[in-house]
Amino acid sequence: MNSKQSEARISEAQLIRKYFAPFANKGAFNLKDDAARLSPVPDTDYVITQDAIAEGIHFFAEDPPDQIARKALRVNLSDIAAKGGEPKYISLALGLGTEWNEEWIAAFAKGLQEDCTRFGVELTGGDTFSTGSGFIISITKIGEIPKNQYVSRIGAKPADAIFVTGSIGDAALGLKARLGGLKDLDETSLEVLLDRYLLPRPRMELARLIRKFATSSMDISDGFVGDLEKLCDASGVSAVVNLADIPLSDAVSAAVRLESNALETALSGGDDYEILFTANADNSNEILASCSSWDFNISQVGEIVEGEGVKVFDTKGEVMEFKNKSYDHSGERS
Amino acid sequence: MNSKQSEARISEAQLIRKYFAPFANKGAFNLKDDAARLSPVPDTDYVITQDAIAEGIHFFAEDPPDQIARKALRVNLSDIAAKGGEPKYISLALGLGTEWNEEWIAAFAKGLQEDCTRFGVELTGGDTFSTGSGFIISITKIGEIPKNQYVSRIGAKPADAIFVTGSIGDAALGLKARLGGLKDLDETSLEVLLDRYLLPRPRMELARLIRKFATSSMDISDGFVGDLEKLCDASGVSAVVNLADIPLSDAVSAAVRLESNALETALSGGDDYEILFTANADNSNEILASCSSWDFNISQVGEIVEGEGVKVFDTKGEVMEFKNKSYDHSGERS
Repeated sequence: MNSKQSEARISEAQLIRKYFAPFANKGAFNLKDDAARLSPVPDTDYVITQDAIAEGIHFFAEDPPDQIARKALRVNLSDIAAKGGEPKYISLALGLGTEWNEEWIAAFAKGLQEDCTRFGVELTGGDTFSTGSGFIISITKIGEIPKNQYVSRIGAKPADAIFVTGSIGDAALGLKARLGGLKDLDETSLEVLLDRYLLPRPRMELARLIRKFATSSMDISDGFVGDLEKLCDASGVSAVVNLADIPLSDAVSAAVRLESNALETALSGGDDYEILFTANADNSNEILASCSSWDFNISQVGEIVEGEGVKVFDTKGEVMEFKNKSYDHSGERS
Repeated sequence: MNSKQSEARISEAQLIRKYFAPFANKGAFNLKDDAARLSPVPDTDYVITQDAIAEGIHFFAEDPPDQIARKALRVNLSDIAAKGGEPKYISLALGLGTEWNEEWIAAFAKGLQEDCTRFGVELTGGDTFSTGSGFIISITKIGEIPKNQYVSRIGAKPADAIFVTGSIGDAALGLKARLGGLKDLDETSLEVLLDRYLLPRPRMELARLIRKFATSSMDISDGFVGDLEKLCDASGVSAVVNLADIPLSDAVSAAVRLESNALETALSGGDDYEILFTANADNSNEILASCSSWDFNISQVGEIVEGEGVKVFDTKGEVMEFKNKSYDHSGERS
């Protein structure tokens, strides 16, 4: 086919060489090759995961490109940590929106490179292509984990305690604010929520703890209640949670005081990227104490019981009802 | 966010369980987990590669979904074979276009499953998401290769012979026909070209030969001339090719007789997914003979020399000029 390129645009090869080769893994031959070689370390398994983020769904066209890159990386990092792995390599499929220009790419690559350095991961390669509409970024991530220590969603047992990192619902309410909601919320709270939507905080410090104690684990990407239900379903158990034990930030609490339906959004909305895990309750004290030197907390929020489904009890001891327990990224935009 | 789903649509979780879990790798926990565990075999390296195909760029909205799935897989398989690897695992990011329905997914999954079985690969997981426009499929592929036998684009040496598999230009002319060109071409030739555009034929049999003989290797995805130039650039050498030695199918030859500019399209258009490699010329006879039991040929098309760039000599001994040496998938649609 006779490709008619806009004169003003850099070619795919130049773009890769200029902006992405500088942080490539040595097995990737400076991204001059069409694949990369990985040499596994003995007694080590790999954890592989892939997540995509799309303009208009997970981020907005006007978001800073470096932040979009960081988000694309971080949504994958939380998956690796949740399995007990240490992140190692990424492969990037960069779907260029019709409005791309070199400045956008430069900022995107800078953000990605900085976060790769920060989290100790190297680029193995990938692909760039035109989407014909908005930007889409799909990152495949490979982590290392000592042999046979991978922690899946399957393995929660009755009487296990349930834990979550950080706080729940900030990003979902950040999106709500971004879409024009929460108009009367104070500036400080708004900033916190918007920032949490823009930039997940993957809890990489947790990986060792997960390997040591967790009976099951996953990251919360589609909403706390729905994701806990998925964990229970995979493990063949049920969960009982008290609302009062679910960690909510001051910003989320302020939003809930303002609009009571914000609570449902916080508990069932997406993009938390916190880690949800279960462990034998005998280990609770050690688990809860382990985060003393980290910049986030671990909270014990409930208990695994026999049965199926998830029950969240409100402060009056009544079971809460949810219209949607989680956000379905394959569904329609709301 | 409060996800408002269309009643008629299956959820992401149901969709994965129903259509994709049946051909998942056992390290993927029936796709109930958010990642998968790979356990590397001793003395084996991994080859990793990622390619994306997008509606309107690499396929058309009206193409059969099972064929789209096969194409998405096969464009990755040729990369693995070109490096000397045996395909093993895939991870799928499935970007659903606005027009998706369960019937589309079912057909897509069926095509993917059949080709996974055919080529011996297993699904480790991935992600589904809404693109807000057309379908986009990004597949990350992992192959196995005996330790230190990976073949990159870097390593072609002066006096090496240059080889290609199959025939060149069929898919690019298939696309031309698809877009309304080649109107006077005979029905049989048209069918051949259209089919080659729709469905690449990855040359997996070649992997052992590549490991044994190739000094450099890559798959041809963006056009023969441009991709040979990339190989030369990575290896720091130049190439001399005679047009008469480039394998053209009867269908391509018929198209070129009809329209002289079809030759440039054939040699510089994308989507061949044949393999281009170099080897010591002393091994030519053994290499050329090795395909006797396969359903495709290997052709010796030229020689590596010192210098840079690629020269293609036409049948009169003159150097051919190309307006575009390759198709840039990040560029504008033509």
